[in-house]
Amino acid sequence: MKIMMTGFEPFGGESMNPALEAVRRLPERVAGAEIVKVELPTVYGRAGEVLEEAVRREEPGAVLCVGQAGGCSGILVERVAINLRDARIPDNGGRQPVDEAVREDGPAAYFATVPVKQMAAAIREAGIPAFLSYSAGTFVCNDVLYTLLHLAAREYPVMKGGFLHVPYATEQTVGKPSGTPGMALETIARGLERAAWAVVSQISEKT
Amino acid sequence: MKIMMTGFEPFGGESMNPALEAVRRLPERVAGAEIVKVELPTVYGRAGEVLEEAVRREEPGAVLCVGQAGGCSGILVERVAINLRDARIPDNGGRQPVDEAVREDGPAAYFATVPVKQMAAAIREAGIPAFLSYSAGTFVCNDVLYTLLHLAAREYPVMKGGFLHVPYATEQTVGKPSGTPGMALETIARGLERAAWAVVSQISEKT
Amino acid sequence: MKIMMTGFEPFGGESMNPALEAVRRLPERVAGAEIVKVELPTVYGRAGEVLEEAVRREEPGAVLCVGQAGGCSGILVERVAINLRDARIPDNGGRQPVDEAVREDGPAAYFATVPVKQMAAAIREAGIPAFLSYSAGTFVCNDVLYTLLHLAAREYPVMKGGFLHVPYATEQTVGKPSGTPGMALETIARGLERAAWAVVSQISEKT
Amino acid sequence: MKIMMTGFEPFGGESMNPALEAVRRLPERVAGAEIVKVELPTVYGRAGEVLEEAVRREEPGAVLCVGQAGGCSGILVERVAINLRDARIPDNGGRQPVDEAVREDGPAAYFATVPVKQMAAAIREAGIPAFLSYSAGTFVCNDVLYTLLHLAAREYPVMKGGFLHVPYATEQTVGKPSGTPGMALETIARGLERAAWAVVSQISEKT
Repeated sequence: MKIMMTGFEPFGGESMNPALEAVRRLPERVAGAEIVKVELPTVYGRAGEVLEEAVRREEPGAVLCVGQAGGCSGILVERVAINLRDARIPDNGGRQPVDEAVREDGPAAYFATVPVKQMAAAIREAGIPAFLSYSAGTFVCNDVLYTLLHLAAREYPVMKGGFLHVPYATEQTVGKPSGTPGMALETIARGLERAAWAVVSQISEKT
Repeated sequence: MKIMMTGFEPFGGESMNPALEAVRRLPERVAGAEIVKVELPTVYGRAGEVLEEAVRREEPGAVLCVGQAGGCSGILVERVAINLRDARIPDNGGRQPVDEAVREDGPAAYFATVPVKQMAAAIREAGIPAFLSYSAGTFVCNDVLYTLLHLAAREYPVMKGGFLHVPYATEQTVGKPSGTPGMALETIARGLERAAWAVVSQISEKT
Repeated sequence: MKIMMTGFEPFGGESMNPALEAVRRLPERVAGAEIVKVELPTVYGRAGEVLEEAVRREEPGAVLCVGQAGGCSGILVERVAINLRDARIPDNGGRQPVDEAVREDGPAAYFATVPVKQMAAAIREAGIPAFLSYSAGTFVCNDVLYTLLHLAAREYPVMKGGFLHVPYATEQTVGKPSGTPGMALETIARGLERAAWAVVSQISEKT
Repeated sequence: MKIMMTGFEPFGGESMNPALEAVRRLPERVAGAEIVKVELPTVYGRAGEVLEEAVRREEPGAVLCVGQAGGCSGILVERVAINLRDARIPDNGGRQPVDEAVREDGPAAYFATVPVKQMAAAIREAGIPAFLSYSAGTFVCNDVLYTLLHLAAREYPVMKGGFLHVPYATEQTVGKPSGTPGMALETIARGLERAAWAVVSQISEKT
């Protein structure tokens, strides 16, 4: 079995993206499943295209995309992607869409198909805070999750899809206001590994 | 040269104290100075007595006490200790003083004598958030810092004294409200080491 | 033209609901439109039934439901309702559904059909903080918004539907942790009036 | 009996100072005592001079200075002033002192002499959040409180002195990050009136 895990390039003036750094630190295998790592550009539309190509090439059993949610204190397990692009800052390609659809022909939203509560529990059991989240925002993170779930719904009905938002790496919080939470990259990577483990466990149980 | 670093026992229902855990992880020597580690009880008065005995025995060049400040996002370098005990929760000996003096014969406050700005800068240079703080509260942490600086002012005028407050360890934030910052114990320990380095540097420069 | 505005009974141990209190303080007319005020029970399913009966009776041009979002600092204009019930606390009828659908036959989500950005702008122009929100949670607030938009989609295609979340009233924050934002009930009521004004303006422009 | 209450001019790019606005809204008398209102410049040293002149002229029974503490959620009753100037931003006179003393000949700190716990309780009884605070910072607010308590200690031993920090007015939070607490000016003014009431009550009891 293959689990694809994706991370984004840095954006918004940051010199690193903790999601990408943590994905890079993941082991090659989790619970017997191969971890396929993919880097996505932080660009509306283009990120989804890169993801789609990778899915067609690798045909993974599940895809877990990972993004930075600056300001959150724990790992957020996203439950919903909405059919909306609405950017407060330009993406890395300089585009800043306002109130556009991700897919003109798509429904208002998709629910993630990975076992979100088991993932959050598995992360917490490793001593890492995790929370369910009901909005992945309207920036490129949501765009990619929507695109993934749209693709799965139409062409890969067995493939599971989900998204994890991670805090700033500790070093990113230097110079930011007091109260801004951070997390060690090693801790983030361990959390992602636990989430992948929960996904593999569920898929394995069913087969 | 000896630098004494102290940590407190757990309190307030927590099963660990990140200050003590991080102090335990410190190396034996920092910048050539010996690190003498001391565990303090989280008990008004008694903590200061244990500290005073250790100072008389070891005669360190500087003392850095370390305590937990649940909810802070970075390492706090304290600048002030006040002559006040006012507890919202009982200490580990069951005492909960209200509006008492630490020392009836002492002044309203003492300033820390360690190089607080250099310590904060040294911590940040290691990629760890640090902030100056102007209140160590009115619980046992403030009590110990006041007692230390009172002792230094009267009997050990060359000995430097300071206090660092550290965030919850990441694992302590599991089950706490979303938004509660944590920090990896390894990161906290690295920050303390940087602070000790700044103290040793300043003392060395002057001699 | 009629604008229906709803507020919920208190829940979660609070002795008041700032949404209901603020709705009660609204004037009888806003920008020429009649304001029809409806109190909803904080009970899954039942809240939607009461709303549905009121819609059939009054046939308003728009419905703005209002709920408490303890901890937020501004008025939140909700953009999305999802087809999910997942309660951390029991509702006022003692039910605590976990991972249920609002409507088995409904889509994953609906977008609000009121002019959300104009509403937020109108509130801010009155000196009151307002933010767009992409999740109304999974408690009774989301339940009612989903039910409203489902009803509109199927039977009242011209009727606009939306939801506003409001902060704690200032008096509710006494005894809560430092940092918990509140807002004066008068300010909340003024913000709701501005939101209603933006809705009436948009409907009027189109006719 | 006279109670002097002071507020500062706006600073730090704000177009208003909620402390000054709230002081202006206070009634002429509270609990039989005359309220003397004084506006202070937000300038190190000069603020204290203006205050000192007003004290010599009016000879009040108590002085309550009031300042803005942007980001706090309740009214803060300050307990301590320290002998330190350390500015992150220039004052309104363009000065930005670093690690200076307020008074070269003064002690490290003074405790406020007003009944801080009764004041906080009186504010909360009016449905307004209030907290004790152990640091008034190192900007002009602390400077004025230190100067006041230094003056009282040396020349006006019967005169009580204290300081209240207040949140942003609600309108100031528009455009600031989500989560920034505000408070209605009417609420702030009511809280200040309650604090003055507690001060008058204590003075009256003793006479």
